[in-house]
Amino acid sequence: MTLTFERLSLNQATTEHSTTEELVSACATHGVSGVAPWRHQLVGGDAAKTRALLDDHGVVASSLCRGGFFTNRDAGEALDDNRRAVDEACELGAASLVLVCGPVTEAGFRDAESRIVDGIASLADHAADANVALAIEAFHPMFAAQRSAVVTLAQAVRLARLVSRPEVGVVVDTYHVWWDPELMSSLEAATGLVRGVHVADWLVPTTDLLAGRGLPGDGIIDLAGILRAVDAGGYDGWIEVEVLNAEVWSRSADEVVSDICGRMTTLIAEAA
Amino acid sequence: MTLTFERLSLNQATTEHSTTEELVSACATHGVSGVAPWRHQLVGGDAAKTRALLDDHGVVASSLCRGGFFTNRDAGEALDDNRRAVDEACELGAASLVLVCGPVTEAGFRDAESRIVDGIASLADHAADANVALAIEAFHPMFAAQRSAVVTLAQAVRLARLVSRPEVGVVVDTYHVWWDPELMSSLEAATGLVRGVHVADWLVPTTDLLAGRGLPGDGIIDLAGILRAVDAGGYDGWIEVEVLNAEVWSRSADEVVSDICGRMTTLIAEAA
Repeated sequence: MTLTFERLSLNQATTEHSTTEELVSACATHGVSGVAPWRHQLVGGDAAKTRALLDDHGVVASSLCRGGFFTNRDAGEALDDNRRAVDEACELGAASLVLVCGPVTEAGFRDAESRIVDGIASLADHAADANVALAIEAFHPMFAAQRSAVVTLAQAVRLARLVSRPEVGVVVDTYHVWWDPELMSSLEAATGLVRGVHVADWLVPTTDLLAGRGLPGDGIIDLAGILRAVDAGGYDGWIEVEVLNAEVWSRSADEVVSDICGRMTTLIAEAA
Repeated sequence: MTLTFERLSLNQATTEHSTTEELVSACATHGVSGVAPWRHQLVGGDAAKTRALLDDHGVVASSLCRGGFFTNRDAGEALDDNRRAVDEACELGAASLVLVCGPVTEAGFRDAESRIVDGIASLADHAADANVALAIEAFHPMFAAQRSAVVTLAQAVRLARLVSRPEVGVVVDTYHVWWDPELMSSLEAATGLVRGVHVADWLVPTTDLLAGRGLPGDGIIDLAGILRAVDAGGYDGWIEVEVLNAEVWSRSADEVVSDICGRMTTLIAEAA
């Protein structure tokens, strides 16, 4: 098991109500090496300024969230926006851009998949030039109507293989995929394609579809089992903690990062 | 297309806050031939009294909800309770008992599936004697931790085929399975196994995981497409409307049944 604390990154969605400066500072304080910024929270709306902030604190951008949305806007508009996202990821030094691919269309899943594959394929040259991976994130099926027609890891892998470009892969988010009886075989199928891992837990009961995710250890997902499977597939990149939770948002970035460091230390030991 | 209004049934969960008498009376008034009772709402807790009520109104029990829960209680306790449920379904004249199979266990999906298959197999002789079909219902993945480890139609079909008894089949609930990119091929695979169809719509946004389902036409599911696919597979049984929705529950059974008759007339015409 090569899973170490050094691979830990904090996804900015976890501290949605803190500033980027507060998050980056808290990560530096607690020895967290990575941060995954969101585009709408770049410092001054600017990737270069955000990169400077990260560099000042010795923190690395693990990925950029998010590109995608190929199914619910004009293809040209999506391409322009996603090219800008790739440029920002490059400027940040982030190895990957996370793609939330857009909801199912009125014409159904096959139509949405076709638009997603075309959209990613049209972006691939630009991503290759920028040395930024495009990482398809499978979302929980409860988001199919609003965020992503990609709802299983198997489907994300299938679409990535359809695009068939070395810069295109997948993100494994525990919260989005844990419910899948075929997850372990899908993780095997994803070998070589994993470009990121997001960690959040599933609370029982879950009462809020969007902001009801759990900190690692508070829910029922076998997080250690998933991390071991990802590890067995040879993934050696960032492990991002991404927890959208209204209560967590109400706390300071310092408190949240400190809390997560403790939880992830426990989880890493369990997964080892 | 053999889909006709005569196949319409009202699942009692749609009128959770009305009495069984009110629901059955409303169905008779509006020409709805079927009702799917829930066990906790049998008249006086008694299947025979409920059957008498149905007979008095010329209404048929389309199914009984619900049996199952094989994964979160002792196997013997589950068997006893499910045998009673089969007896009640038989007394009601219901052709099938809907099985909500129970949540994923700490040991994971394969463990849960094994307990589900064993539980159904142990119940099959009794169901055969009573001439009651056992219908595995796939639940939306957001219920995996609390209600059902069976989360896709493909999985329900696979488990039914593992039990391999003529009295064991599946229920297709539009709300639970619409999000699945592989739904159409799963419906093909379910040919000959479908023992029931439940209709509810997916609202956008969905804000309540349990009681946020939509009346047919209020959401984004291609209900006509699913009904056509079920029909193409040769299913000619009941089409139950089952909408768990707090606002719908606040209305009278008469108003709800009248509303649903209009919506289903439209849907049936669209699916034809």
